[in-house]
Amino acid sequence: MIIAVKRGTSRDEIIEFSTNLEKLGVMVHLSEGVSQTILGLVGDTTRIDAENLQAHHLVEKVIRVQEPYKQANRMFHPDDTQVVVSGPDGKNRYVGGGSLTFIAGPCSVENREQIVHIASEVKKAGAGFLRGGAFKPRTSPYSFQGLGCEGMELLLEARKETGLPIVTELMAIHQLEIFDQVDVIQVGARNMQNFTLLKELGHCKKPILLKRGYACTITELLMAAEYIMSGGNEEIILCERGIRTFDDHTRNTLDLSAIPALKRHSHLPVLVDPSHGTGLSWMVPSMAKAAIAAGADGIIVEVHNNPEKALCDGEQSITPDAFKSLMDVLKKYAVIEGKTI
Amino acid sequence: MIIAVKRGTSRDEIIEFSTNLEKLGVMVHLSEGVSQTILGLVGDTTRIDAENLQAHHLVEKVIRVQEPYKQANRMFHPDDTQVVVSGPDGKNRYVGGGSLTFIAGPCSVENREQIVHIASEVKKAGAGFLRGGAFKPRTSPYSFQGLGCEGMELLLEARKETGLPIVTELMAIHQLEIFDQVDVIQVGARNMQNFTLLKELGHCKKPILLKRGYACTITELLMAAEYIMSGGNEEIILCERGIRTFDDHTRNTLDLSAIPALKRHSHLPVLVDPSHGTGLSWMVPSMAKAAIAAGADGIIVEVHNNPEKALCDGEQSITPDAFKSLMDVLKKYAVIEGKTI
Amino acid sequence: MIIAVKRGTSRDEIIEFSTNLEKLGVMVHLSEGVSQTILGLVGDTTRIDAENLQAHHLVEKVIRVQEPYKQANRMFHPDDTQVVVSGPDGKNRYVGGGSLTFIAGPCSVENREQIVHIASEVKKAGAGFLRGGAFKPRTSPYSFQGLGCEGMELLLEARKETGLPIVTELMAIHQLEIFDQVDVIQVGARNMQNFTLLKELGHCKKPILLKRGYACTITELLMAAEYIMSGGNEEIILCERGIRTFDDHTRNTLDLSAIPALKRHSHLPVLVDPSHGTGLSWMVPSMAKAAIAAGADGIIVEVHNNPEKALCDGEQSITPDAFKSLMDVLKKYAVIEGKTI
Amino acid sequence: MIIAVKRGTSRDEIIEFSTNLEKLGVMVHLSEGVSQTILGLVGDTTRIDAENLQAHHLVEKVIRVQEPYKQANRMFHPDDTQVVVSGPDGKNRYVGGGSLTFIAGPCSVENREQIVHIASEVKKAGAGFLRGGAFKPRTSPYSFQGLGCEGMELLLEARKETGLPIVTELMAIHQLEIFDQVDVIQVGARNMQNFTLLKELGHCKKPILLKRGYACTITELLMAAEYIMSGGNEEIILCERGIRTFDDHTRNTLDLSAIPALKRHSHLPVLVDPSHGTGLSWMVPSMAKAAIAAGADGIIVEVHNNPEKALCDGEQSITPDAFKSLMDVLKKYAVIEGKTI
Repeated sequence: MIIAVKRGTSRDEIIEFSTNLEKLGVMVHLSEGVSQTILGLVGDTTRIDAENLQAHHLVEKVIRVQEPYKQANRMFHPDDTQVVVSGPDGKNRYVGGGSLTFIAGPCSVENREQIVHIASEVKKAGAGFLRGGAFKPRTSPYSFQGLGCEGMELLLEARKETGLPIVTELMAIHQLEIFDQVDVIQVGARNMQNFTLLKELGHCKKPILLKRGYACTITELLMAAEYIMSGGNEEIILCERGIRTFDDHTRNTLDLSAIPALKRHSHLPVLVDPSHGTGLSWMVPSMAKAAIAAGADGIIVEVHNNPEKALCDGEQSITPDAFKSLMDVLKKYAVIEGKTI
Repeated sequence: MIIAVKRGTSRDEIIEFSTNLEKLGVMVHLSEGVSQTILGLVGDTTRIDAENLQAHHLVEKVIRVQEPYKQANRMFHPDDTQVVVSGPDGKNRYVGGGSLTFIAGPCSVENREQIVHIASEVKKAGAGFLRGGAFKPRTSPYSFQGLGCEGMELLLEARKETGLPIVTELMAIHQLEIFDQVDVIQVGARNMQNFTLLKELGHCKKPILLKRGYACTITELLMAAEYIMSGGNEEIILCERGIRTFDDHTRNTLDLSAIPALKRHSHLPVLVDPSHGTGLSWMVPSMAKAAIAAGADGIIVEVHNNPEKALCDGEQSITPDAFKSLMDVLKKYAVIEGKTI
Repeated sequence: MIIAVKRGTSRDEIIEFSTNLEKLGVMVHLSEGVSQTILGLVGDTTRIDAENLQAHHLVEKVIRVQEPYKQANRMFHPDDTQVVVSGPDGKNRYVGGGSLTFIAGPCSVENREQIVHIASEVKKAGAGFLRGGAFKPRTSPYSFQGLGCEGMELLLEARKETGLPIVTELMAIHQLEIFDQVDVIQVGARNMQNFTLLKELGHCKKPILLKRGYACTITELLMAAEYIMSGGNEEIILCERGIRTFDDHTRNTLDLSAIPALKRHSHLPVLVDPSHGTGLSWMVPSMAKAAIAAGADGIIVEVHNNPEKALCDGEQSITPDAFKSLMDVLKKYAVIEGKTI
Repeated sequence: MIIAVKRGTSRDEIIEFSTNLEKLGVMVHLSEGVSQTILGLVGDTTRIDAENLQAHHLVEKVIRVQEPYKQANRMFHPDDTQVVVSGPDGKNRYVGGGSLTFIAGPCSVENREQIVHIASEVKKAGAGFLRGGAFKPRTSPYSFQGLGCEGMELLLEARKETGLPIVTELMAIHQLEIFDQVDVIQVGARNMQNFTLLKELGHCKKPILLKRGYACTITELLMAAEYIMSGGNEEIILCERGIRTFDDHTRNTLDLSAIPALKRHSHLPVLVDPSHGTGLSWMVPSMAKAAIAAGADGIIVEVHNNPEKALCDGEQSITPDAFKSLMDVLKKYAVIEGKTI
């Protein structure tokens, strides 16, 4: 961490300030120029609050050199993390570390027939996981809010019938007890900075699919992962799903540059959700291919047998047939990129 | 709600589609052109999910004319709502409806002396409410997270000593029980779309200060209010606190145009938080004045007796003296704007 | 175009308004509901100014259904446009329509040796065009502004030596005369809405590489193309090069969803610039691959033999070797995507 | 300027690098830590290109402490600049330095009667300048493009009749000759980074009203001013007119925090354009008042006698009566803020 000291600060003030800084557990190197004095803080600055320092009357500017996250940081964990999910069929699935992961299913669980049918269709096409929402975060209180506990039971039936592990969204801590048989818990974009929830998930033993908040930076996403990891749960799968920009031709702007950025700064696997990331079913295949080409460890995509009658997000769901065609191309991309499926 | 039908749709298909739409409880008016057919949906479209309609294969475009919120909508409630808060001193405070409200205090409660001292200082300067955080949403798990329950007790002491009602942030449903004596519950920007929390607050009897999420639209803010109101709690105070943009000279971009926009579309009171909205203490007075000039019903501002040593957000806190000077000017603005204090 | 009329408007007012609207050359269909009357404007609404209509006292809302561009619109030109560039070697290059185009070269022309060397390197690796700036738009007046006319001469020498057609940026109308031998004229992001310049280029006979402004929508980009096309020049190549968002881990946020969006709405070829789109050389290969996977007709990429000593944009330039490796992968992608090189 | 050197760099490499840096005309201070070495560049770093340095293989991060602009920088010019405009009536108008400036008029000049009528109305209400466009930057080539030279003549007539100095937009260098009698030349948002134009205006002797580009930072605005000032023309008036964000309830998001930011970093006067900044006439008075409260040196506002029939931007124009009412309130604000009119 670097601190530029305000012009006109006396040498005594600087020394006193440096001494106080060293009490925070770092060493302070002083670089005095004619018009600018700079303090370099050396050591573990993860726990130093840059914004607090900014308030000090001697401080012109505080600049972080080291990232504020540690357990999620590739610097301290150079090898890729591979999250292992043991499904209901007893087989392991690997997320990250050279494997491509395909998660597919409807936005919401609607009824037994729908979820079991879609599950078997996406499995046939090559999906390794079933996604589906029982609890739905909806912008309007008047929109369909998901089937809740009943939806969870239907998901578990589909899991049993197909052998696919399931990924579903948790919206509040008190729901945790009914997530007992869920294979991967999803934290949605709107909860990425629900810090109380993140802390609780740190004590949980299940893999977490952590979606990037639609107005959160790469650093904030990794800090959210750090919240969970610092609690003891290191099984985190990151997921880019579009950010909010001035751009209005898609629901969100899918930030595919997040893939190489996350890969460089962190060892955690990175998936992409082209369905929420665009909000447009006809755009999903292009963006799914682009995600794999950019280095993603897989995709999570909405598939519905009858998008027009979907109770939720129909406009961004593709049909099982379209998913099948997409998978055929993605398998070719996997070969070029040297990934296993 | 208006639906533009895709070119080439047959008359029969349109009629079948219209019949299905009418089952949603609206009347459908058909406007057939040579190259474009338009359906006008008349009636209460609040409960119709525009995004679902968008997925229909006959639909080119869906356009909402009526806003998707109802209880928060000025159209159905033309007069300003005035939220009444009865403080510990037995006196009523009025938020909105021609009154100006001033809420001040530190980012976090740090210790008894600090919170009582600041409370009495801001009261002297003219604040009507004390703010202060016991539970703090922090980006880093390694930053100070608030004093928790102990902080709440200290806040209540400051409340008792000064007679100021208190405003403090709730981060999770399970904390509700210790918010029993809190006068106004704050929902922070990061929880504005924590729908589980919003629903729960709908059953609560306390006024809610609902902060705008930093990447949420005006409509989404009003939909969040609608979540609470549809549960039965109509005591909502809206708060603009800055949005996320490309602009990097402030922590957030304070969107003061939200004030006239919210006033036009809703009857609820609107406050502004220039501290989080800028992140820079030297900018707070300018933005506080601008907020009142733009028609806000008041401000919520961070005041700390020693910003440099604040455990949180020191760089955006002003001193009690600066707050006093600001209040002196705001009182003059109130006269011009015809507001009571 | 659809107009929602304000509530409470009398029938007579509506009829008078409709009659006036029909004078603009469209037919008006009236759809009267109990609480909402809607006017559907049928015909060519390209020349109708929606914003002006919005000012009318009877108007609640104006919604465009038809896009405001015509010549750039795929609806009126269903087949892909293929731009043909005849290079100095007498061979034709095709941009769009199933071909992949690779444009490479340094940000700025620096000296004869540099530009000729890079040109021959990128040609060997498979580039079909040489890029290089003689006139540079720089944020600071104190930064290197390009070699100007001398740079143009050096570019022409590199063109002659290698047989590669050249792409270089025009910054002002008066420079046009020295662009006589340039093969493709680039309009930079900052000039995308320099309407005087666009009009002038409509009278020019050369292909234009039109870069998307970093805060412009897809519609605005196509309107900029329309400016040029309406003047008579239909040889337009569109180029996505990143937009400005809150996101700070890249210089710009490369919006790859612009590729399928532009392809759907327009018949013009679409290139991607991953160098300016990210500002980070280590990210260029990932984003270049993603662009091709998403359906782009090619890429334009900065290549410099010694990025560290580049006079401009070194941090986003890749070396000729890295470009060679990238091309090797892109050729495999071309096969999967069924594109010719 | 501070440079964090990459870990693992040898002492010899650092010394060689520092020696090369000193050739750029600065002194380099070395601060060696255990894991991090930092170089502090002291002296005039305005001419050093931070982005180029970023490309160097030894560089981890480059951070500017000193702003990259000099003539526009308050640090080198502590007192407010007051721009003096001598109008056709021989009286001086002062922009900045304690004066409030009111510029009003239609978006476009439409005909003699319109411009002369509006000019006399806004003069009566207290405006000190007449604005009006002869050359209009329009998104669509099919929209009204302004009356051009004829519009300029009509503006000059209105100027003569009312004695009001005029402010009008220049779109290209070749138009300069007919701007001879214009009192203040406006550079529009879309031309803020038209560097060729800015350089030319540096040789011009007229005051420039420089509007902030809708996706430009405060630093970029001041760099645009620096372009003009470095050419010799120091009569610059800055103008905030809204930025592009995800927010869609206004045409642009008016960034009023730009006022205190520009005032702190620069000595140049700052106006605000609430008409383009919101795009909504009913919002103009609130935002105009907020601008003055936030410390602006004045406003530029669109006034039209018949907004519904305006050929351009009618939806954001207020009537002369509304302007008069607004002026009455602004005069009271001027008293509180200690400004002269």
